[in-house]
Amino acid sequence: MKALVFHGPGQTSWQDVPDPSVKDAGDAIVRVDAVSICGTDLHIVKGDVPEVSPGRILGHEAVGTVVETGGDVLGVRPGDRVLISCISACGRCRFCREARYGQCRGGGGWVLGHTVDGTQAEYVRVPFADLSVHPLPSALSDQDAVLLADIFPTAYEVGVRNGRVRPGDTVVVVGAGPIGLAAVVTAQLYSPGRIIVVDLAEPRLAAARELGADATVGAREGPERLVEDLTEGLGADVVVEAVGVPEAFEMCTRMVRPGGRVANIGVHGKPAALHLEDLWIKDVTITTGLVDTRSTPMLLRLMAAGRLPGAELITHRFDLDRMEEAYDVFSRAADTGALKVVLGGPQHDTVAVRPKEQ
Amino acid sequence: MKALVFHGPGQTSWQDVPDPSVKDAGDAIVRVDAVSICGTDLHIVKGDVPEVSPGRILGHEAVGTVVETGGDVLGVRPGDRVLISCISACGRCRFCREARYGQCRGGGGWVLGHTVDGTQAEYVRVPFADLSVHPLPSALSDQDAVLLADIFPTAYEVGVRNGRVRPGDTVVVVGAGPIGLAAVVTAQLYSPGRIIVVDLAEPRLAAARELGADATVGAREGPERLVEDLTEGLGADVVVEAVGVPEAFEMCTRMVRPGGRVANIGVHGKPAALHLEDLWIKDVTITTGLVDTRSTPMLLRLMAAGRLPGAELITHRFDLDRMEEAYDVFSRAADTGALKVVLGGPQHDTVAVRPKEQ
Amino acid sequence: MKALVFHGPGQTSWQDVPDPSVKDAGDAIVRVDAVSICGTDLHIVKGDVPEVSPGRILGHEAVGTVVETGGDVLGVRPGDRVLISCISACGRCRFCREARYGQCRGGGGWVLGHTVDGTQAEYVRVPFADLSVHPLPSALSDQDAVLLADIFPTAYEVGVRNGRVRPGDTVVVVGAGPIGLAAVVTAQLYSPGRIIVVDLAEPRLAAARELGADATVGAREGPERLVEDLTEGLGADVVVEAVGVPEAFEMCTRMVRPGGRVANIGVHGKPAALHLEDLWIKDVTITTGLVDTRSTPMLLRLMAAGRLPGAELITHRFDLDRMEEAYDVFSRAADTGALKVVLGGPQHDTVAVRPKEQ
Amino acid sequence: MKALVFHGPGQTSWQDVPDPSVKDAGDAIVRVDAVSICGTDLHIVKGDVPEVSPGRILGHEAVGTVVETGGDVLGVRPGDRVLISCISACGRCRFCREARYGQCRGGGGWVLGHTVDGTQAEYVRVPFADLSVHPLPSALSDQDAVLLADIFPTAYEVGVRNGRVRPGDTVVVVGAGPIGLAAVVTAQLYSPGRIIVVDLAEPRLAAARELGADATVGAREGPERLVEDLTEGLGADVVVEAVGVPEAFEMCTRMVRPGGRVANIGVHGKPAALHLEDLWIKDVTITTGLVDTRSTPMLLRLMAAGRLPGAELITHRFDLDRMEEAYDVFSRAADTGALKVVLGGPQHDTVAVRPKEQ
Repeated sequence: MKALVFHGPGQTSWQDVPDPSVKDAGDAIVRVDAVSICGTDLHIVKGDVPEVSPGRILGHEAVGTVVETGGDVLGVRPGDRVLISCISACGRCRFCREARYGQCRGGGGWVLGHTVDGTQAEYVRVPFADLSVHPLPSALSDQDAVLLADIFPTAYEVGVRNGRVRPGDTVVVVGAGPIGLAAVVTAQLYSPGRIIVVDLAEPRLAAARELGADATVGAREGPERLVEDLTEGLGADVVVEAVGVPEAFEMCTRMVRPGGRVANIGVHGKPAALHLEDLWIKDVTITTGLVDTRSTPMLLRLMAAGRLPGAELITHRFDLDRMEEAYDVFSRAADTGALKVVLGGPQHDTVAVRPKEQ
Repeated sequence: MKALVFHGPGQTSWQDVPDPSVKDAGDAIVRVDAVSICGTDLHIVKGDVPEVSPGRILGHEAVGTVVETGGDVLGVRPGDRVLISCISACGRCRFCREARYGQCRGGGGWVLGHTVDGTQAEYVRVPFADLSVHPLPSALSDQDAVLLADIFPTAYEVGVRNGRVRPGDTVVVVGAGPIGLAAVVTAQLYSPGRIIVVDLAEPRLAAARELGADATVGAREGPERLVEDLTEGLGADVVVEAVGVPEAFEMCTRMVRPGGRVANIGVHGKPAALHLEDLWIKDVTITTGLVDTRSTPMLLRLMAAGRLPGAELITHRFDLDRMEEAYDVFSRAADTGALKVVLGGPQHDTVAVRPKEQ
Repeated sequence: MKALVFHGPGQTSWQDVPDPSVKDAGDAIVRVDAVSICGTDLHIVKGDVPEVSPGRILGHEAVGTVVETGGDVLGVRPGDRVLISCISACGRCRFCREARYGQCRGGGGWVLGHTVDGTQAEYVRVPFADLSVHPLPSALSDQDAVLLADIFPTAYEVGVRNGRVRPGDTVVVVGAGPIGLAAVVTAQLYSPGRIIVVDLAEPRLAAARELGADATVGAREGPERLVEDLTEGLGADVVVEAVGVPEAFEMCTRMVRPGGRVANIGVHGKPAALHLEDLWIKDVTITTGLVDTRSTPMLLRLMAAGRLPGAELITHRFDLDRMEEAYDVFSRAADTGALKVVLGGPQHDTVAVRPKEQ
Repeated sequence: MKALVFHGPGQTSWQDVPDPSVKDAGDAIVRVDAVSICGTDLHIVKGDVPEVSPGRILGHEAVGTVVETGGDVLGVRPGDRVLISCISACGRCRFCREARYGQCRGGGGWVLGHTVDGTQAEYVRVPFADLSVHPLPSALSDQDAVLLADIFPTAYEVGVRNGRVRPGDTVVVVGAGPIGLAAVVTAQLYSPGRIIVVDLAEPRLAAARELGADATVGAREGPERLVEDLTEGLGADVVVEAVGVPEAFEMCTRMVRPGGRVANIGVHGKPAALHLEDLWIKDVTITTGLVDTRSTPMLLRLMAAGRLPGAELITHRFDLDRMEEAYDVFSRAADTGALKVVLGGPQHDTVAVRPKEQ
């Protein structure tokens, strides 16, 4: 089959590799019908994630069709359309027993495209299939569903749930990339009073407004002042960090009100300064986390019922074998306006689809 | 009357001042029967707390007897023995309505010995008395009860409750001063599996063991290794910072397990480094906070029932008019072994009382 | 002034009474601008609420303008437009300290139109005004805001919050009177997957559909079968009882899934059978409660932002001095189609306003 | 091998049966080293549990040694000493994914001695072994550990956790059989202010006092009055029903304070009257439930650390082949004083061991 193989920093190729096969009784082999590229994939390609060895097939977001299952798989059968979760779960370790699958100690967690071969391929072996893939309702298209592999549960669990968004809250989302936008979308499940989005790029702010943000502000246009003005000087109830750089995180801790929550989703490479000389007295809660994808079945139901947007987040679509071109477009997001780039699926057009004007 | 007056950095005196009187209908005037010195008082004397103006009477921990009340006070009457909470509460602002009294916006919060005259005096005016003093059960001595003015609710609310200590948990307390020791005591209300205490001073570690710590370790004797060894490499469920310096806070964030909680109680004067490059993926919750003293009535009941230690934390007792000497002893804790220093009360002996040997 | 006075079972009159005046320093005297009738008022008139003495002015829902305040009132001033909460709160008792104002032991709780004179009058004395009235944003009309005096916080707190409605949940609301409809509205704040409403009256089911119910079913048309069919035989996540009769409550306990919640809002006059022989093993949580109105400030913000419907629930409007006629219309709801009946306000038309057709 | 076989109402025999063998890849075959009899077993023998077919081997509480495992079992190996949980868990269904194992829809839940052969035998097949047995620390004796198969997690999860016992609370436990006593023990993990125990039998009340109850009262000696007196007329924070008859449940609902919790553990055969005419306004939470045994690993750690009593609850010990005699003693508890009856283990003495006098 064909797959996107990592050959060391800066080097990948879409090439022939052996087909995967069932190795453990809990495995499923899935034909990839739609797959997307994650910002984390770009980090891997740059060489920022040393656990990824040369020779590894990348990718941890996909939708597909089961073609084979191991003897211990009870939940899906060949022919089933499934969502492949970015997190695999052994189901038996202490963390899986509390549904903290992202921290799985039994061979799961984030493994696809990381420590085992991933989804940017024609076929993929998914370990622990019963807890790691989700049957898809027929109402859901591949291209909508692929957003549930990672960004929607990540934004919801690590941003919205960790941040404990409540009806009426003022929520600030710093960063309007795919994850930040998914936070804008999923925060609305709790009916906040107001969502304010901060980003450097006006097109991303426009996308945020279209997806439900009540106010947007350029990162250099005084976002802290805006939050202060809108909250009578108090600060936001919840601030979601969806960037992954120290400056963004530190801004979040200045924007939060006493008693508020800062939920970090960003993938960081450096320490941030935590201004405890200001924060020690402020009753602030800061959370970090990897997604567990425990919310995926619920999000699937909501999306199938038409209560979550899908296609609005997808700016570019490609045929699977144009993987390298897709990486190129996604990696130059500032130029291309790429938000989510999806490969495969029934309508493999390559024309950029932009959020419609309001 | 006599009171301890702050005259600017490094300058205080026990001197004559006018008696306080009822200014607002919610005030109570309380005769101080027992009062203690808090580490925060030392910070004020050093000049670290600029909101404290020269002329201010210090002190925010005391037990006393009501001598006069304003027309709006319903909960206590002259003659009542009361605990004076370190936090006053207007009872009407948005924060008081959610029992977050420490963040009161209506004139309360931490005001005694800070923005209004405090308890290190023969008499004190307590604003918002109905929500700011607690009638004392006769079973409780002044000297035991004074520990409930600040350190016990602070350790319990900001350390144990924010840290969500649960039965069976491994809890690490970094810092074995009065607040850290109170965290050791109040953590036991939730039956953790193991409490590990870290401090530089062996006498404080000995006090921790006596008060229920299961293991203690010098701050320079490899505390991180010990926690790792005792938790199969996983880290602690809850880590409580009770020091207030960056190094201690940063150690806490290295000791916590995935999914665990770091509860900061320490009063910090500088930023700490938050190693998000390690923590972003770890499902960690970090909390800060000022005490609300919402737990005080419950802690009073438990102490009256003999279920909380009192005198064991008090190392020195003085008559009220030896306030300056008491400050001297407390400020040289490394030499004097001072933990909690109490003035007033029926047995005004000045002999240091040390925790008995195990 | 004029007021609706209860003279014993079956007897009320709109008559002259003395104007109210400030009795306690926490009182506010409020001119009533809009007032509504609650189902509980009908119970009182029937004689079902023995604590209500003859001579009592009825009513606990209103919006008005402050005309006088006692010396201890800080939060509102004469001239302020305010929402009068159905619950008054002393702010000092153990229940008020945990924001459980409905259980106030200090003279508050549900007192208006119950143990003190109420709001169905030209003026009303509101005790503990600082915690019992809410300043109104100018964006809110009197007639919309009056729905926040009782039915919206009751439905939200006692139904939706006690029932812990979560995104994706299946929610059943049994009873589509004003409170049940308000539960339909406020449940949507948590984005349930599906709201199913049960009632005997088709017009009320139509109103429920218009307000967001996904499915409705006649109480005699097999509601239990419908819930079973829609949930793969499992039952609903949350069932809200908004009727107040044993049969309705018992139906709720049959409709709930293992692990689900039954939230009772209904005012009951008789015991129900609790089928513990079925329920003991089912992990069910049943809650009861009187509203605390702690959510009122948040609901006010949401309504001012246009995120809660108002007028849609009001079917009839009258001038204040047509109180007796309004009672008559409201008491014959089956004939008149009355949902919420409001008196006063700028547009005092008496024409029934029905939910518009879908 | 030998096993206790149910032959229909009133008929059981300790007889030869075929040895169990691995049927599914997740099975473990365990040699039974210690086993106990549960009150539920008596109900089965009486014929109250129709799902139990004649021919079924009874028993769902045991400790043993693994002798064989299926190919899919990763967590235990032959030779391992294990606790057999009364609840088996498939680990994949929607309920197992939220650790609600008692409601497992994938073939687990309470199955041992119910719908598959149980533990009152020389060997037992345990399905889904990885999630259904727990390796035993060597510090724990078989006889102590067997209490963790059912009664301790049941009392803790369904009584203490569902009842949300908090430090300082007044807790009432109605029923001082093994489960009620285990509730007395595990409630102490949260440091309630006071535990009051109600039972008809003075010896059981004596056992409750020895295990930590602060006050005990005969069920006919005015328990409601006592609770009222001890709580200033308010009622208890938490009331645990550990009997399973309507009168006991109804008493619980009269003893609970406004805002309090009633946690039902009792196995009921009949409906109770729920006095909603009193309770609708009282902010009461009532819970029911089957144990999930999710707390078993934590309870194992606490017991291994010596923080839970074991042997104090065991009144009688027998060799395994005296099963019929053990049933006889256990079924005549009023005469024999039986609390927990254990068979097997190193000290198979048959002498009744009673709680030592205080």
